[in-house]
Amino acid sequence: VSAANVALPPNPACVAGPGQQCAHALVDRELNQRLYEYEQRVRERFTRILETLKVLSSMRHQSDFVAKAQQLASMQLGYALPDHLLEDAWIAGLDLRALHAYCTFQSFHACVENAESDQQALRERSLLDPDFIRGCGFHTVDISPCADGRLQGLVPFIFRMAPNSAVTVKAYAGALFDIESDIADWTHRELLRLSDGLAPGSAEGNYLKIAVYHFSTSNPGHQGCAAHGSNDHQATEAALDRLKELRSAIDNIYGFGAAPDCLLIGVDTDIDAIRVHLPDAQGHLNVHRFVDSSQLYRDTLNMDSATARQHIASTVDQTQHMDGWGRGEGEMVAGMREFVIHLLEANLSQIEYVIQHHEGRYQVIGHNERFICVGEAMTELQLRNKFYFAHLDTVEEGANDMDVGIRIFTGLNIQHGLGVPVLIHFHYSSRVPGARERAIQRCQRVKNALASRYAHLQNNHQLFCQMAISDVHGSERGCFVEDVESECTVH
Amino acid sequence: VSAANVALPPNPACVAGPGQQCAHALVDRELNQRLYEYEQRVRERFTRILETLKVLSSMRHQSDFVAKAQQLASMQLGYALPDHLLEDAWIAGLDLRALHAYCTFQSFHACVENAESDQQALRERSLLDPDFIRGCGFHTVDISPCADGRLQGLVPFIFRMAPNSAVTVKAYAGALFDIESDIADWTHRELLRLSDGLAPGSAEGNYLKIAVYHFSTSNPGHQGCAAHGSNDHQATEAALDRLKELRSAIDNIYGFGAAPDCLLIGVDTDIDAIRVHLPDAQGHLNVHRFVDSSQLYRDTLNMDSATARQHIASTVDQTQHMDGWGRGEGEMVAGMREFVIHLLEANLSQIEYVIQHHEGRYQVIGHNERFICVGEAMTELQLRNKFYFAHLDTVEEGANDMDVGIRIFTGLNIQHGLGVPVLIHFHYSSRVPGARERAIQRCQRVKNALASRYAHLQNNHQLFCQMAISDVHGSERGCFVEDVESECTVH
Ligand SMILES: [Zn+2]
Ligand SMILES: [Zn+2]
Ligand SMILES: [Zn+2]
Ligand SMILES: [Zn+2]
Repeated sequence: VSAANVALPPNPACVAGPGQQCAHALVDRELNQRLYEYEQRVRERFTRILETLKVLSSMRHQSDFVAKAQQLASMQLGYALPDHLLEDAWIAGLDLRALHAYCTFQSFHACVENAESDQQALRERSLLDPDFIRGCGFHTVDISPCADGRLQGLVPFIFRMAPNSAVTVKAYAGALFDIESDIADWTHRELLRLSDGLAPGSAEGNYLKIAVYHFSTSNPGHQGCAAHGSNDHQATEAALDRLKELRSAIDNIYGFGAAPDCLLIGVDTDIDAIRVHLPDAQGHLNVHRFVDSSQLYRDTLNMDSATARQHIASTVDQTQHMDGWGRGEGEMVAGMREFVIHLLEANLSQIEYVIQHHEGRYQVIGHNERFICVGEAMTELQLRNKFYFAHLDTVEEGANDMDVGIRIFTGLNIQHGLGVPVLIHFHYSSRVPGARERAIQRCQRVKNALASRYAHLQNNHQLFCQMAISDVHGSERGCFVEDVESECTVH
Repeated sequence: VSAANVALPPNPACVAGPGQQCAHALVDRELNQRLYEYEQRVRERFTRILETLKVLSSMRHQSDFVAKAQQLASMQLGYALPDHLLEDAWIAGLDLRALHAYCTFQSFHACVENAESDQQALRERSLLDPDFIRGCGFHTVDISPCADGRLQGLVPFIFRMAPNSAVTVKAYAGALFDIESDIADWTHRELLRLSDGLAPGSAEGNYLKIAVYHFSTSNPGHQGCAAHGSNDHQATEAALDRLKELRSAIDNIYGFGAAPDCLLIGVDTDIDAIRVHLPDAQGHLNVHRFVDSSQLYRDTLNMDSATARQHIASTVDQTQHMDGWGRGEGEMVAGMREFVIHLLEANLSQIEYVIQHHEGRYQVIGHNERFICVGEAMTELQLRNKFYFAHLDTVEEGANDMDVGIRIFTGLNIQHGLGVPVLIHFHYSSRVPGARERAIQRCQRVKNALASRYAHLQNNHQLFCQMAISDVHGSERGCFVEDVESECTVH
């Protein structure tokens, strides 16, 4: 147990005495092992950067510095550094900010290049796979968590969902997703469904929208959602209001009954437990009607798996019929109930993962992101606190989300002399002529807008932007593009 | 004939000797008369502004200036001026820029308030009405002209179409419309069609996209499309390329055959004649395969209406079968042919309108806009050279279109000591909760972005922005909103 943890209360999900173990019958230990290997592999690509730069800095006066530096970089990091950033080091010192940003982007790129093999084990064994989700009646799962980096491992870790094309993540500060943009996404998927353009078996399915707020049980007033002043109740209600607005917007535009199914989920970012709010028969959600997975973990810890499963199901059903502030009208449909129950069960594995690999509660319960990602999310990198992610089409619309990110990185990086690495990423479809060029133009537009909005950082050599694009169909993924348009030949 | 016109070549559509008249059998003179009254009424609201300000300026040292000024304004302009802009005139002089911008917006608002009665006569008699358009097989007509003010009378004047909810105008500099935004619009209308949300009789219809480029026959090298360096051929090909991209994008996303029907039309902004490019059996267009309405006007001037109609139809059919560079594969479908033939016939009325009311060629063949409109177009004001219109969601995406507009107004207004009035307008649906507030937020976002992009104008008191919103269903139209959100009670 690290020193920083001593003062904190014991892990609420499981208090084990000396020699005891928290081992729940419903936990998938093989999957946990695979996720831990994935986490280690990815984490290492980033933690080595500062170590390596420290060594480089200390040897910059040695003769043959450039060659030695390149040797060290390729050994420690697995890639070369730009010669021009090394050559003048003996005169002007190392441009550590530029090197740090360069390495961050290269390490990100290594994650993308290795995603196929890194993530294969996860895809094969994820608990909520595409067939299960379709079986529950959902052709699309559109998740909007907060932009907060602590939620960026949401899909494979906290939800134990396999990365796949029917699951999209669009993060916004405070989970305050953009209604108009969501209507457009819903319309697109709905039309694909009607024109048989979705995966087989999706024609009868619904669109599932999930809003994900977050809070911190160990330090609720400070490590909750920054966008809501660490106020849980406000974060919950704001996300719920957004869901209601989305539903009534679509019902009003396309006719009553068109609205997507909605779920509201809260994440305790200290221990990755979830609160799943239960819709009623009308699909209405309520801030007070939810099932808490950490409570479930405790209550079912010593049960065999059949009894534990029964307990989860009956807890869900009792909660459906709760009285008082959380009272709903009738029961949710069978597919939704199935989905909710399995999601709660799947999350038990993540709770135990944190118990096993992070001593019951993350050592760093606050921000610790490595870079900011803006634009559209990539499934290739999904890990807690690796990046702050703001889904946006333009900085003009996403300015608030970007400002929150820059504020976080002012504390994380700028105050320590580093800059802010910003990855700008958009998708295109290689089947659509001109779409690749337009994606690059969009990257460039966002890059220019960032340079102008954060001119003080730009002018102080503290803002580093890297543009990247991915084909939604083909093999070009996270391809870096430079200011002057050039073919992506390296990757 | 004004002095400025003497040096120009005679009107290409009709050269009448002394005492002769250009009077075509297919022209709707009653409609022309109504349009002329509409033009006069609208034009007067703007031309009186500078006259009135000139008088105000000369009397600003008179005793009782404020009362006299208000009296003059309400008599000449029909509305009051803000007292605070008048009260200090005797000390600091009149703030003519602010008054000019204020009046421009108020005059615009008068057009909106009177649109119902101003335009009723047009709506009742327009040649291409909604029933006719649906009869040709189109449930939606989505028109993208150049942002150029000379095309802002396109729908009621040049095309003789009734303003109606199935016809939308989204203007972009050079007619270079936004593919992604068009896909979203198409998707929306297509889904409405499939869910029976369109006007009755639309279920079997198609979506018609029309791109409209422009050129100047009297001064081709200077008064053509600024976005294409007044190069006709380039303007034509660029618009055609955009249409091709749109078609293949939709075909590729939603399956072959999904793509909308497309038309490419050129406007000679000197005389409002059109070139209609003819699709072939596959819907393919060609820069060299078109019918020119001014040629049709000349060729059919002395025919009776039946013969003239026959001539138009046979010209269209001969052009369909032309050889050489314009050669196509097969004939367009019957509904499209019907549409094209009627559009050509309808435009003959506009050619004669210009002959009759503008001496055969507009006196001002260049720019003469009164303000810039950004965001979404309003059907309430549609008149040549009243405004420069850039369709955009964000300044970040529409920066190029805005820059062209600011350049035009630098010549028109700033060089003469006036500022640039910019109307920022967006629609919302009152049936969608929160949509009104989001439309206001969007206005505010665009306003802030304009102030920051054109900081030099903003700081020099040369940029004047007015925000306005309209409900797509209800009666709130062009409602002015101020920086601090307040209910729209006045209008
Ligand atoms: Zn948050
Ligand atoms: Zn409450
Ligand atoms: Zn133009
Ligand atoms: Zn050519």
